[in-house]
Amino acid sequence: MQLEAQDLAQAVIARMADCKEPRLKEVMTSLIKHAHAFVQDVQLTPDEWMAGIQFLTAAGQMCDEKRQEFILLSDTLGISMLVVAIEQAKAAAAFKPEAGADRPTEATVLGPFFWEGAPELALGSDLSIGQPGEPTYYHGRVTDTVGKPIANCQLDVWSGDAEGFYDLQKGPDAPMALRARFHTDADGYYRFWSIRPTFYPVPNDGPVGNMLHRLGRHPNRPGHMHTWLQSPNHESLITHLFVSDSPYIDSDVVFGVRNSLVVDFAKHAPGVAPDGRVMDKTYHTCHYDFKLVPKA
Amino acid sequence: MQLEAQDLAQAVIARMADCKEPRLKEVMTSLIKHAHAFVQDVQLTPDEWMAGIQFLTAAGQMCDEKRQEFILLSDTLGISMLVVAIEQAKAAAAFKPEAGADRPTEATVLGPFFWEGAPELALGSDLSIGQPGEPTYYHGRVTDTVGKPIANCQLDVWSGDAEGFYDLQKGPDAPMALRARFHTDADGYYRFWSIRPTFYPVPNDGPVGNMLHRLGRHPNRPGHMHTWLQSPNHESLITHLFVSDSPYIDSDVVFGVRNSLVVDFAKHAPGVAPDGRVMDKTYHTCHYDFKLVPKA
Repeated sequence: MQLEAQDLAQAVIARMADCKEPRLKEVMTSLIKHAHAFVQDVQLTPDEWMAGIQFLTAAGQMCDEKRQEFILLSDTLGISMLVVAIEQAKAAAAFKPEAGADRPTEATVLGPFFWEGAPELALGSDLSIGQPGEPTYYHGRVTDTVGKPIANCQLDVWSGDAEGFYDLQKGPDAPMALRARFHTDADGYYRFWSIRPTFYPVPNDGPVGNMLHRLGRHPNRPGHMHTWLQSPNHESLITHLFVSDSPYIDSDVVFGVRNSLVVDFAKHAPGVAPDGRVMDKTYHTCHYDFKLVPKA
Repeated sequence: MQLEAQDLAQAVIARMADCKEPRLKEVMTSLIKHAHAFVQDVQLTPDEWMAGIQFLTAAGQMCDEKRQEFILLSDTLGISMLVVAIEQAKAAAAFKPEAGADRPTEATVLGPFFWEGAPELALGSDLSIGQPGEPTYYHGRVTDTVGKPIANCQLDVWSGDAEGFYDLQKGPDAPMALRARFHTDADGYYRFWSIRPTFYPVPNDGPVGNMLHRLGRHPNRPGHMHTWLQSPNHESLITHLFVSDSPYIDSDVVFGVRNSLVVDFAKHAPGVAPDGRVMDKTYHTCHYDFKLVPKA
């Protein structure tokens, strides 16, 4: 049978007749349809096709243990945030809130800078010791959606430094910095000190950076503190707390900002902080209560 | 502004407002629409997304000077052949045939095994000396679509060996084999000896091979001789001559077979071949005339 351009997608799909994994077959069927429709829509030329092959190859070869160019590509094209939004909508739909239940805290992207195995610190610790940056006291409570406190909830936090760089970006031997793991107390409270995160460009010395440049896009994310909350009886939550007056709060390069995650980092004159610490310079406080969905 | 899942694609597209390259913007707009529609259609989960990231990363890291896993991915999903078909349709539409003009020879995929710089040989040479395989005499004429011979047309030819392996697949130090460059004579004729190509699996020890396996697909291509014809005043042509009785002629893993490119490799008893060569064993002949589109 002679396959013409418009028959090709269907022929590729038909070739999966013996696939034993129904979900894989479903995903690939849609992927093949959309990939062929894209090529047809733009009448992709051989030179453009080759540029695409070279882009993907360069992205793959940029990846190592500490650099993930394909996550960056997915993030900057809004794909990662779309996957997060779909997942959160499913979790929210599965949970039947009782009368008066609150909406769960919104999720956002994991990003490429999570580093497994951050040190476990006592509540109230300062994880920014020795790091430049404006001191900030983070505190609040973790509850479920009807306000029941979640004790012993694991809370991973991580951020870049005062110049916007994460530890992972500082060379092969750089130690962990500005990341830690806490557990909430018996009443669901958490508290720790770190810096007020600044905006920063995503790594843009590779093919994705070049793509952003050619598309006329800036590479910046507004300042944010990453959090990952895990508790055995609740859906885990990966999110950020965004600094409300940060540059780029309205144009995050990875489309990760949610209104409900934007927090005023209150500025305070030197004096006694809420936890009794005596501050000899200006500091900030960030208060945020997280609400997790109980597992079905 | 709070972006919901269905708004995300449009927000990513809007972010390209300052893009200075109209064609890039057009291609990326369609790519973003289709990528988001795919994720929405299948309601892609975070685990599936991560599997996709890992697949792309592994594919990129499989690539080197002699291995191109992304071309293989494009080939096996029918994308490469679609790009070829679109390009050929454009070239054919641009050429206004005079009355009685023939259809130009159909194109097919380049594939991942072209190796720049094959030796230039005299017409009639045997490029299979020292290689196992059934001897085959290839001959025919190169003309334009109204039958005017094309003298001095450059003809690159390459194929795998009797076991289906290309020189490029035989280790980092393997020399070129079963590839050569010829030029047609003053009347547009070409002739050379090589082997009768056998079917073979595309390289399937990487992520694309694993994908084919999980999709229930065989990895094989029917036997074919690659050709690349280039002449200053004609559109260049990348195509194959397929062995008509080869296994997999109806299910080429890269969807490259065109009816008009399927050739009977006539079998002959030992004796005098068409070029006067005395054959002491069975041999084949493959006759094919190529028709190129004059440049506008």
